[in-house]
Amino acid sequence: MPEVIFSHDPSKTMAQQAVPGHNRFHPEVPAAATVRPGQEFRVESREWTDGQIGDNDSADDVRDVDLDRCHMLSGPFRVEGAEPGDLLIVDILDLGPIPGERGPVCGQGWGYSGIFAKVNGGGFLTDYYPDAYKAIWDFHGQAATSRHVPGVEYTGITHPGLMGVAPSHELLDSWNRRERALIATDPERVPPLALPPLARGALAGNADGDLLARIAESGARTVPPRENGGNHDIKNFTRGSRIFYPVHVPGALLSVGDLHFSQGDGEINFCGAIEMGGFIDLRVDLIKGGMDTYGVHRNPVFQPGRVAPLYSEFLTFIGISVDHRDDTNLYLDATEAYRNACLNAISYLKKWGYTDEQAYLILGTSPVEGRIGGVVDVPNACCALYLPTEIFHDDIRPGGAGPVATDRGQVAVTS
Amino acid sequence: MPEVIFSHDPSKTMAQQAVPGHNRFHPEVPAAATVRPGQEFRVESREWTDGQIGDNDSADDVRDVDLDRCHMLSGPFRVEGAEPGDLLIVDILDLGPIPGERGPVCGQGWGYSGIFAKVNGGGFLTDYYPDAYKAIWDFHGQAATSRHVPGVEYTGITHPGLMGVAPSHELLDSWNRRERALIATDPERVPPLALPPLARGALAGNADGDLLARIAESGARTVPPRENGGNHDIKNFTRGSRIFYPVHVPGALLSVGDLHFSQGDGEINFCGAIEMGGFIDLRVDLIKGGMDTYGVHRNPVFQPGRVAPLYSEFLTFIGISVDHRDDTNLYLDATEAYRNACLNAISYLKKWGYTDEQAYLILGTSPVEGRIGGVVDVPNACCALYLPTEIFHDDIRPGGAGPVATDRGQVAVTS
Amino acid sequence: MPEVIFSHDPSKTMAQQAVPGHNRFHPEVPAAATVRPGQEFRVESREWTDGQIGDNDSADDVRDVDLDRCHMLSGPFRVEGAEPGDLLIVDILDLGPIPGERGPVCGQGWGYSGIFAKVNGGGFLTDYYPDAYKAIWDFHGQAATSRHVPGVEYTGITHPGLMGVAPSHELLDSWNRRERALIATDPERVPPLALPPLARGALAGNADGDLLARIAESGARTVPPRENGGNHDIKNFTRGSRIFYPVHVPGALLSVGDLHFSQGDGEINFCGAIEMGGFIDLRVDLIKGGMDTYGVHRNPVFQPGRVAPLYSEFLTFIGISVDHRDDTNLYLDATEAYRNACLNAISYLKKWGYTDEQAYLILGTSPVEGRIGGVVDVPNACCALYLPTEIFHDDIRPGGAGPVATDRGQVAVTS
Amino acid sequence: MPEVIFSHDPSKTMAQQAVPGHNRFHPEVPAAATVRPGQEFRVESREWTDGQIGDNDSADDVRDVDLDRCHMLSGPFRVEGAEPGDLLIVDILDLGPIPGERGPVCGQGWGYSGIFAKVNGGGFLTDYYPDAYKAIWDFHGQAATSRHVPGVEYTGITHPGLMGVAPSHELLDSWNRRERALIATDPERVPPLALPPLARGALAGNADGDLLARIAESGARTVPPRENGGNHDIKNFTRGSRIFYPVHVPGALLSVGDLHFSQGDGEINFCGAIEMGGFIDLRVDLIKGGMDTYGVHRNPVFQPGRVAPLYSEFLTFIGISVDHRDDTNLYLDATEAYRNACLNAISYLKKWGYTDEQAYLILGTSPVEGRIGGVVDVPNACCALYLPTEIFHDDIRPGGAGPVATDRGQVAVTS
Repeated sequence: MPEVIFSHDPSKTMAQQAVPGHNRFHPEVPAAATVRPGQEFRVESREWTDGQIGDNDSADDVRDVDLDRCHMLSGPFRVEGAEPGDLLIVDILDLGPIPGERGPVCGQGWGYSGIFAKVNGGGFLTDYYPDAYKAIWDFHGQAATSRHVPGVEYTGITHPGLMGVAPSHELLDSWNRRERALIATDPERVPPLALPPLARGALAGNADGDLLARIAESGARTVPPRENGGNHDIKNFTRGSRIFYPVHVPGALLSVGDLHFSQGDGEINFCGAIEMGGFIDLRVDLIKGGMDTYGVHRNPVFQPGRVAPLYSEFLTFIGISVDHRDDTNLYLDATEAYRNACLNAISYLKKWGYTDEQAYLILGTSPVEGRIGGVVDVPNACCALYLPTEIFHDDIRPGGAGPVATDRGQVAVTS
Repeated sequence: MPEVIFSHDPSKTMAQQAVPGHNRFHPEVPAAATVRPGQEFRVESREWTDGQIGDNDSADDVRDVDLDRCHMLSGPFRVEGAEPGDLLIVDILDLGPIPGERGPVCGQGWGYSGIFAKVNGGGFLTDYYPDAYKAIWDFHGQAATSRHVPGVEYTGITHPGLMGVAPSHELLDSWNRRERALIATDPERVPPLALPPLARGALAGNADGDLLARIAESGARTVPPRENGGNHDIKNFTRGSRIFYPVHVPGALLSVGDLHFSQGDGEINFCGAIEMGGFIDLRVDLIKGGMDTYGVHRNPVFQPGRVAPLYSEFLTFIGISVDHRDDTNLYLDATEAYRNACLNAISYLKKWGYTDEQAYLILGTSPVEGRIGGVVDVPNACCALYLPTEIFHDDIRPGGAGPVATDRGQVAVTS
Repeated sequence: MPEVIFSHDPSKTMAQQAVPGHNRFHPEVPAAATVRPGQEFRVESREWTDGQIGDNDSADDVRDVDLDRCHMLSGPFRVEGAEPGDLLIVDILDLGPIPGERGPVCGQGWGYSGIFAKVNGGGFLTDYYPDAYKAIWDFHGQAATSRHVPGVEYTGITHPGLMGVAPSHELLDSWNRRERALIATDPERVPPLALPPLARGALAGNADGDLLARIAESGARTVPPRENGGNHDIKNFTRGSRIFYPVHVPGALLSVGDLHFSQGDGEINFCGAIEMGGFIDLRVDLIKGGMDTYGVHRNPVFQPGRVAPLYSEFLTFIGISVDHRDDTNLYLDATEAYRNACLNAISYLKKWGYTDEQAYLILGTSPVEGRIGGVVDVPNACCALYLPTEIFHDDIRPGGAGPVATDRGQVAVTS
Repeated sequence: MPEVIFSHDPSKTMAQQAVPGHNRFHPEVPAAATVRPGQEFRVESREWTDGQIGDNDSADDVRDVDLDRCHMLSGPFRVEGAEPGDLLIVDILDLGPIPGERGPVCGQGWGYSGIFAKVNGGGFLTDYYPDAYKAIWDFHGQAATSRHVPGVEYTGITHPGLMGVAPSHELLDSWNRRERALIATDPERVPPLALPPLARGALAGNADGDLLARIAESGARTVPPRENGGNHDIKNFTRGSRIFYPVHVPGALLSVGDLHFSQGDGEINFCGAIEMGGFIDLRVDLIKGGMDTYGVHRNPVFQPGRVAPLYSEFLTFIGISVDHRDDTNLYLDATEAYRNACLNAISYLKKWGYTDEQAYLILGTSPVEGRIGGVVDVPNACCALYLPTEIFHDDIRPGGAGPVATDRGQVAVTS
């Protein structure tokens, strides 16, 4: 285990920590620590909502979550010698829940996934499932089970949902401009089209006064992935992965957070992963001038790690880019195609006794593969959701005696 | 090898065959043969353009292709006992190129992939690459190489790009209505938003006279995937796969065609697979009343086969839903996100001496995985393209001595 | 499909072919054809017994098989420019059963596996199963099923059981000397410890007269693997594999035969694979002086191909190097350890209603992995047999309701 | 993390711990703790030599190791309700090195592998490499590197080398009888054929006086695997694995130890794995009467876990059962065949500048697969060693420019 350069008292909020993290991307967030190329180090991480969700059987906390505080990131970390134009190499050596015995803080032996209410966060199927729900997951080594979703057990692909470097002022301006333009097309939409900078809830390490005000005024919210990396929510960003980030500011300013115990492609129920606090061990290095050398100017590239759960049997659901509620044809819309693949899977799983919400949460948390089929065959995009059949205790494949609708209880609901 | 129930003289067009196939989906296309549940049978298949593309070094044939004749399908095959509400099981036992020595017909030891001109077909990156190009690929067992794209060799995942059952009249009416509504939103667009029924070039087996006229008038073009299956272009629809199709008409009326030697997720250059004529061996069976039993009412579901090329090292490119040409933010648009991942990969491969078109064709034809990352983190969808590094003769991973821009010639161009 | 350089009329024995093959390794066997480095070519192959086994329900043909004629090989093929000290590269491009419809010759849509009688061939468990049995397997694309072993279906890893180059006279002398020395330790043993040169049944292409007599007198029998390659029976020698053979004689003299549709590690029932006649497509090349360059002086090395059936669930049986019949401890004997792992697996499978012989044949023909566990922990070697559970129609894993002993009939027996 | 039921002060020997473990298998070793079916628990484990090996550059400690104290096991654990005839289910939930920062005790951020001297332990190639050597390995998450073996990096398959239940008195008597009979065939052999019970160094938890004397007199040494499980050294016994042990005594008496960070099939250099102290999390359950129900009477069976490093490119070395030193033919001896495969691999790796000892240690510690090829083709067994090429920084495949013999230093040697 390498040296801990960012620690975390689970019983306190991020703002209360000795060295706080941050929840906005901005080039002026003060560095929490400095690392040198070649160094290995451990970072402790808060669960993304900063501890708002409890190990209980009510979804009220999900319904009422304060999203302005999210995501609480550890860092930023200044990398010695990093300059704009370089590629920052980040090796994910290891990550996991909070070490030690089961406790009340998310990551202490358990995690959760939530269906967020349409009025507060939403999710991929929020037009179909507008209310808040929650499931608690227990960790057994690399496997997870849930009292709220009986009959399944997964081997998780642990990964950080969010990791990224600081934008330059120029890049940040570009984000703010284009996202505000998008919001302006439908400013009253629920949920909103995008989240603009917001002073309320902003945290920027130990910055205060004018500096904090400046960061709060223009700092980018952490919800989306952008050119700096950010909230990729790519399930294969796991142990052994090597990421190459374009560097935009001196020192690169690397941040990380939003650890996931397991997640399916798309993280479809928004907080679709099994969320947890925990630790992540990293090693950094530099390719000087690497952006030009390798033609990597926009988004990071990465090599996935060599560890993944071995699943070889899938039942695959297909969707096309038609809104079947009113039979409207969209044009090569992979998002809609994948949404329909998910809805088809839920329809199927209900025959085995799962509720809509249980099925939705299975798709979000289990290692499903979301693949783009065809995106050129006008007018319909085609996407496919590969559901590993081996995560179910029952044999859910078609054929044989047919499904038996077992009573499987229910996920946590709101009061 | 099972009994051949649909044969194909490679030297003749589909219309000239003893028992012609068809190129429109319609419930009244006469069955070319009848099969019984449990039967195994072989179907011979024309390459999808019906033989318009040659083994040469000019892309003129791609530029000038007559798309009204496409896709030429084998079938339909009536399945004894199949009725609406059933699930039709189709096992793909085997498929491959045309047996025998190398010859002038596509599938006789070679295939092709094409970048279609924006004015005639287009493709996923047609706004970036509007002209026609072509590459010829040679088959070496399960591997492919190309004189037009030196430095790569793939193990192909052979699959039918297109397989499906006949729609009911009601379902067909729904398609025509919704697709015409889409076209009406921008009727002059190039390429068009969708392709409406078209009498020119229509073929419906041995139908003629009034029947042919009726089919031509309302029969669905075969380009998109729809509820009946159709042009899925899913690369994992390979040997050993089992598909479950909802049955919409008595006899199900199964058709198949558009065989691919290899393809990446998305089939991004439209005719992005390595196209070929060849054979496919199938076995059919029925689950009576299976649509209700399993909740499979809309799209087919399938279990992928157990054969896939073993690639374990990837370089992964990420894209987000921003149109970077003018820095416009789209809302959770997975299609745009995947397009950017593809563009990022092309930018990278050019550093190794590949031309834009060569890189584009590598992405379309090699077994890349196109995965949906996050589709809930407003406003940006995130998609990732996993490029297997082991298909390249050079080590293309970042690090080491850096890329050497080798002269790799050029793909076939137009005159 | 490349040019056929060695063809095979299935209705005739190897000796009756226009250009016969051979069944002894000797440096003077006349070349059947010449190939040049870089050339791709097809070779047709007889099933290893030269057609002695029929598609029927009696094991009499297995009991009475004339092993002196085996294995019937195609070739040898002279490689232009090959000289002693080179490494001969052989790429296995493709292989499969005899093309065309089902017929009476092994490989025409079917294959077989046999338990050979202890008095005529034997096998790995011959002390436990001394009598002759047989199962016929039907091919469905890449999958096999058997009317004699209901309840299982495998995706086969097709491979040549036997491929190799000619020995030099010096190497051949060494083989004959050391194998005769072994036989001399127990010359009356049944089955014999090794098979010395034998004039009866010897075939050496079109050699006759003195040349044939000389070859017959000292030519090595083809049963074992040796430094020239030979009867490796390695299941992963499949499509896409590249083998590097040390060259011992000018022209290398490559031969191939004994094609298998599927086999488990160890080929435990001797003729344990699913045997077939068929074709194999090869490409050859040379690394001049490669034996010294790479330190490959003794046995060939190879890179396995990229195609393998995807199985990810195994039930694993362990054996140690104790002869449990009389509780005798052997010293680090991996052979005995693997034998016990096989016996433990048979004991287990019998609980599901399989007969001893059915279970034995499943282990020989299915893609089981035979792994060496520990071979240093005195006195017991430990080996493990990984049985893919997904080849069974029933769920054979421990747990749940326990096994149900289904009546599964019987394999073919002797009269 | 579950409750710790067996803890371990790294700075003390096993005998000095508050609750000591044991190093002999005997039905009367007092239970260190009791667990109930369904319980999850953590066990801390000493490195197998009980701390005799240091993080330094001398192999003297390996040369002089006191093997009489090995292996130091944690346990035994009594399982409530377990009775002879049951199957004990053990789920390996997690395992890893000692948590915390790097320290002087093996497992604190580092491990080692050793070539043991022929006069003190030996190893698989001890006749070729009779002297003592050592390499220290550093842990980086799931990957290992070594200053003594530069140029390689592996993703480890962590596993317990040794886990097992107590034998009954009857079973223990059988072991002692048969192993003494083996020793009697060559009682002066170096290294010995087997290790009989030995009072010196015996530890049996808190037993003392007559009880300890009785255990020491007949208790089985822990080196070999036997019917109770024991020192399997199976690399795939990793996280997520489920083992089914036949129960021989009331309470089953489960013990575990000899944790490995990584190991190749065969653990060929005896202490061939990367050895470490650490922790293991287990869950136990029972199948009452399961030995008869499933026909599992002799050795345990297991289902491997779903986590394994993804390596897909191998260079494979083959060996046959000939002692090439004097060209003696052994009969179907898989041990000798695998030994030759290992020697062939060493010969190859030396061309890249590795010393004999470095190459030997790579084969022992990296995730090589040791597969049984054919064990029926008289007189030669054939085994194959699959070496993952992706663990090397250089491209070690044949072809291209050929090997460059880099100076790679040396492993730790004796004074």
